[in-house]
Amino acid sequence: MNAPSENPADLDRANPEAEIAARAEAFRNWGRWGGEDRLGTLNFIDAAVRVAAAGLVKTGRVVSLSQSFDMNGPQKGWRRRTNPVHLMMDTGTDAERGAQGFPHGIGGADDHISMPLQCSTQWDGLGHIFDHGHAWNGRRAGDVVTSDGDLVTGIEHAASVIVSRGVLLDVGRHLRPDTGELEDGYAITAADLDATIEAQGVSSLVGRGDIVVVRTGQLARTRRDGWGDYAGGPAPGLSLTSAGWLHRSEIAAIATDTWGFEVRPNEFDVAAFQPLHQVVIPNMGLTIGELWDLEELGAVCAESGTYEFLLSAAPLPITGAVGSPINPVAIL
Amino acid sequence: MNAPSENPADLDRANPEAEIAARAEAFRNWGRWGGEDRLGTLNFIDAAVRVAAAGLVKTGRVVSLSQSFDMNGPQKGWRRRTNPVHLMMDTGTDAERGAQGFPHGIGGADDHISMPLQCSTQWDGLGHIFDHGHAWNGRRAGDVVTSDGDLVTGIEHAASVIVSRGVLLDVGRHLRPDTGELEDGYAITAADLDATIEAQGVSSLVGRGDIVVVRTGQLARTRRDGWGDYAGGPAPGLSLTSAGWLHRSEIAAIATDTWGFEVRPNEFDVAAFQPLHQVVIPNMGLTIGELWDLEELGAVCAESGTYEFLLSAAPLPITGAVGSPINPVAIL
Amino acid sequence: MNAPSENPADLDRANPEAEIAARAEAFRNWGRWGGEDRLGTLNFIDAAVRVAAAGLVKTGRVVSLSQSFDMNGPQKGWRRRTNPVHLMMDTGTDAERGAQGFPHGIGGADDHISMPLQCSTQWDGLGHIFDHGHAWNGRRAGDVVTSDGDLVTGIEHAASVIVSRGVLLDVGRHLRPDTGELEDGYAITAADLDATIEAQGVSSLVGRGDIVVVRTGQLARTRRDGWGDYAGGPAPGLSLTSAGWLHRSEIAAIATDTWGFEVRPNEFDVAAFQPLHQVVIPNMGLTIGELWDLEELGAVCAESGTYEFLLSAAPLPITGAVGSPINPVAIL
Amino acid sequence: MNAPSENPADLDRANPEAEIAARAEAFRNWGRWGGEDRLGTLNFIDAAVRVAAAGLVKTGRVVSLSQSFDMNGPQKGWRRRTNPVHLMMDTGTDAERGAQGFPHGIGGADDHISMPLQCSTQWDGLGHIFDHGHAWNGRRAGDVVTSDGDLVTGIEHAASVIVSRGVLLDVGRHLRPDTGELEDGYAITAADLDATIEAQGVSSLVGRGDIVVVRTGQLARTRRDGWGDYAGGPAPGLSLTSAGWLHRSEIAAIATDTWGFEVRPNEFDVAAFQPLHQVVIPNMGLTIGELWDLEELGAVCAESGTYEFLLSAAPLPITGAVGSPINPVAIL
Repeated sequence: MNAPSENPADLDRANPEAEIAARAEAFRNWGRWGGEDRLGTLNFIDAAVRVAAAGLVKTGRVVSLSQSFDMNGPQKGWRRRTNPVHLMMDTGTDAERGAQGFPHGIGGADDHISMPLQCSTQWDGLGHIFDHGHAWNGRRAGDVVTSDGDLVTGIEHAASVIVSRGVLLDVGRHLRPDTGELEDGYAITAADLDATIEAQGVSSLVGRGDIVVVRTGQLARTRRDGWGDYAGGPAPGLSLTSAGWLHRSEIAAIATDTWGFEVRPNEFDVAAFQPLHQVVIPNMGLTIGELWDLEELGAVCAESGTYEFLLSAAPLPITGAVGSPINPVAIL
Repeated sequence: MNAPSENPADLDRANPEAEIAARAEAFRNWGRWGGEDRLGTLNFIDAAVRVAAAGLVKTGRVVSLSQSFDMNGPQKGWRRRTNPVHLMMDTGTDAERGAQGFPHGIGGADDHISMPLQCSTQWDGLGHIFDHGHAWNGRRAGDVVTSDGDLVTGIEHAASVIVSRGVLLDVGRHLRPDTGELEDGYAITAADLDATIEAQGVSSLVGRGDIVVVRTGQLARTRRDGWGDYAGGPAPGLSLTSAGWLHRSEIAAIATDTWGFEVRPNEFDVAAFQPLHQVVIPNMGLTIGELWDLEELGAVCAESGTYEFLLSAAPLPITGAVGSPINPVAIL
Repeated sequence: MNAPSENPADLDRANPEAEIAARAEAFRNWGRWGGEDRLGTLNFIDAAVRVAAAGLVKTGRVVSLSQSFDMNGPQKGWRRRTNPVHLMMDTGTDAERGAQGFPHGIGGADDHISMPLQCSTQWDGLGHIFDHGHAWNGRRAGDVVTSDGDLVTGIEHAASVIVSRGVLLDVGRHLRPDTGELEDGYAITAADLDATIEAQGVSSLVGRGDIVVVRTGQLARTRRDGWGDYAGGPAPGLSLTSAGWLHRSEIAAIATDTWGFEVRPNEFDVAAFQPLHQVVIPNMGLTIGELWDLEELGAVCAESGTYEFLLSAAPLPITGAVGSPINPVAIL
Repeated sequence: MNAPSENPADLDRANPEAEIAARAEAFRNWGRWGGEDRLGTLNFIDAAVRVAAAGLVKTGRVVSLSQSFDMNGPQKGWRRRTNPVHLMMDTGTDAERGAQGFPHGIGGADDHISMPLQCSTQWDGLGHIFDHGHAWNGRRAGDVVTSDGDLVTGIEHAASVIVSRGVLLDVGRHLRPDTGELEDGYAITAADLDATIEAQGVSSLVGRGDIVVVRTGQLARTRRDGWGDYAGGPAPGLSLTSAGWLHRSEIAAIATDTWGFEVRPNEFDVAAFQPLHQVVIPNMGLTIGELWDLEELGAVCAESGTYEFLLSAAPLPITGAVGSPINPVAIL
């Protein structure tokens, strides 16, 4: 079998099934880390990568890569995904008025959140996407994720894993130096990723175990123009044809500043939905981050000319979750 | 005024008001970082501390300090605090059965959580506790936290702040070398903290901007015996008399492996509730972590003899929150 | 003091404070049912009214007056009011696949809802609105409703009360016989209510203890045109000047097919918000229903020429709630 | 085939599969109301029943049959079933302090609930229970209830249906005249139901379309002794052998004052779980009410000697729900 093309022009836009299947087969990592594996490509992170990443900390600056969690977010209710609802369980007004019944003048405020785990900045867990009823490592989807949650690859298994070298690939700035923003529908190719690395210089070289964060600039646009259809509508993002790059680079994880990581509309003329997810999550075992805020990081890296940093982005260990809200921090 | 005593035997156990007021006044940091401050002692973290902390990473090991987030937690409903409720919005069983209506064999699972922000491992924000109707920096409680949330010192302001040198003070192991567990009701004094540091050696020296994590061993006991009254019942913890130590050490934050950070029952013979909180949050501006899991970290440090590490513990930027669930990671 | 005018043209549109205050004073029922009262005008319902109402049941037809509870509702997040989020806790797909672990072939589905109590068809409780810091019967608002809920007039106190004679006043059909729909911004006056009664005939005569349901027709329009700003935007509704009618009629409760019961925009040229609520809930003690679906009932009554029925609309006894979702049924 | 025995002593306590299957087959109503049916035995309610029921209203008294909805309920988290969490979205303390930003002195309180739909007094919808992967009317469980909810028999279809004649069978009072409470584990038989009817007199005669409410007295005991294992533990309730009575009586629905309607432990010596549910919901199409409060009703009926009333118990029309919280009211 020939390796699947990395040129979007070669895609058979009438046949997502075949294009997905070719890449699923070519880049499938099932069994690579044993039959019991729960981590997929996160296994690429090793101690040496982390120690080296810690050595990248030069300025002590911390940049949060998280969007905010509140009702002013982009979600519109698609498949029950809403913005987070934050309610107070106790307030300062109650405390000040003496309504709480505590002794010696102490008062308190407490709060509560209800939210889809993928409402704002998050990791997709390995149980988030299936390919023809199969989950990561070849398990049956129904054996993995029931109403009881992800019984096998729940995000809690990554609780002490996702700290590594981070590399920003600011594809938006590289390809659109005037605006820094890729237009909606732009499909980022393997060649684009390589060109960005080359342009950014040696601090951007991507290696095994790294976490790559790809800035498209779409978030900057929505901040200027309003959310619009940020959650699910047209967006720049990775091309289906980039799957080979994601595989051979042996990265541990990847994240973008968009809702869905891959280009939208998807690259087909018939009904299609997130084909790259279908290849990389259940087949490759790749952990994907979405809805990240890469604006400050992009500016910092552009100014310094250095695109690597220690990235600390451990998920909340929500038992059986197929994703987790996170506040990833780049420590530079 | 004399400095408040650091000997618990000196406490007037009939007069929490006076004992709290003396310490609130002695250790009040209002205005220290200007009238607009939103961070309190987190201001002690500077770039140099972080760069030095990154230099502590020797093995590349990451230890999660988070308890799990699920319904098997310790909460019993006190003041509406429940364990987190994790529900699936889409499942693998649906996907495998073809019930989702997606094209080309893709399927998905999604999930949702409802939880008090302080149900499991968390930071208390500065708006969490009030002293006689006053919040951090002298603001009126009702001006800070209403049903709209914390309008001033919301946890989102710390989103890119809480990365620093962490130091484990394993008071449980030091004081109870046989069991490693302090008994419920044991009040940890300033002298205990100093003795622990001295016993643990130079890697435990605590300085400005550090985040101190105090292991009492109570969590180990509950894992053996069941939660019991872990959430709000008797527990080892910091003595009210340790407030001076917390102030002069200029630490950025402190966390424990208990529900409530300070000793319970509180050190009074009359009605009292969390007097040390009342001193250190609204008056000192100290960020407090609770419900941390320090078991693996304790074992690792005991074996290595090194008690310092890079601690990455940024909160989720939930707008207006008075606390945040976190997965703090020690990077060693 | 003269009785406040019932002609909207007489309102001083620059002075909501004065117009509200005049009606609050004129129609205040504080103390009318004793200092401990928790029910307000619901006290007008007595056994005789109910027995007579049961006698109205002629056809055995039941008409639900409830809108649906789902994410396709009108709420847009104003003051944290969202549409209900209904999630499954167990599913038929799980059961069919045998994923539930139950014996002898039994399987189950369960579900969960998160919702503001006023997201769809509902009663406003007496603790829902305050006038200058006062709640129903003259209590201080902060003594009644804290983060612990409504400690005094919680909706649970009406759990066995709200069954009475219902009367439909189809003002939409009466005033706009061609369309049956009042235009947004139309203020229904006392005269309109009386004219509708006269036109509809003797079955519409309103008496003490009745529950009046006023159909404006706005819901029919939104069903045709989309929700638009149904939740909080322009709408037909009761004029502030109708407060006297609501008082002297001694009705037990009133409900409409709109978001907010009263006309919107409110009848002032300066900032104003729900002035009629301010008069009738905390001062008069009137229970108000909103977001009712009166389309089928309107058609049934128009065809039969009879506008009275047994109305059963007891709230869920949610302890301390200031409102309740309901499915009111007209039994004809 | 012989009719299944109605004597519990005849049950093969080692073979729940066979005992359930015999009754499922004998009492299956699939197709009785056509292939599209969504209501099951609720179809037995007709206009004449309702008109006659309205004629039973003699005193105008309304008795709520609902337990409260709050955190002091019986749920302990089994299969994610918790007690309802009621949180305030706006409070009187905020309003009184002027923190809400509204004009002319108006203030408001709003609230929110998160709850399993079966946490307190409720109806089980027809999609709640499956028999070997089959739902009501012979549909496949996975075709009926997915993560999208009950796509066929959602509780919203009963929104204007469940008003009928109610009959209280106070089995507790009849069988245990001294205490009025059946002991946990007591299996109510068809003979017990008939004997209760005979003892109570003609007002208790049960006919087609009636809603039968069976008082065991267990709730009275838990109110005295604490919840204990009320949610799922031992309880009095209907015997599996009563299925024939439930079928031939042509009742529309049945409800009890227990968590689970049927006797617990179930009547087998091997693993068994709610066998009567398995017979009557998916096979017979019977709507079941649980967690009802029949204490006041029991006292009223015992005093009056009349056990029939108008019962109004329409569910909230939560789209796709497999159950609904309700406040059923008996109008006498």
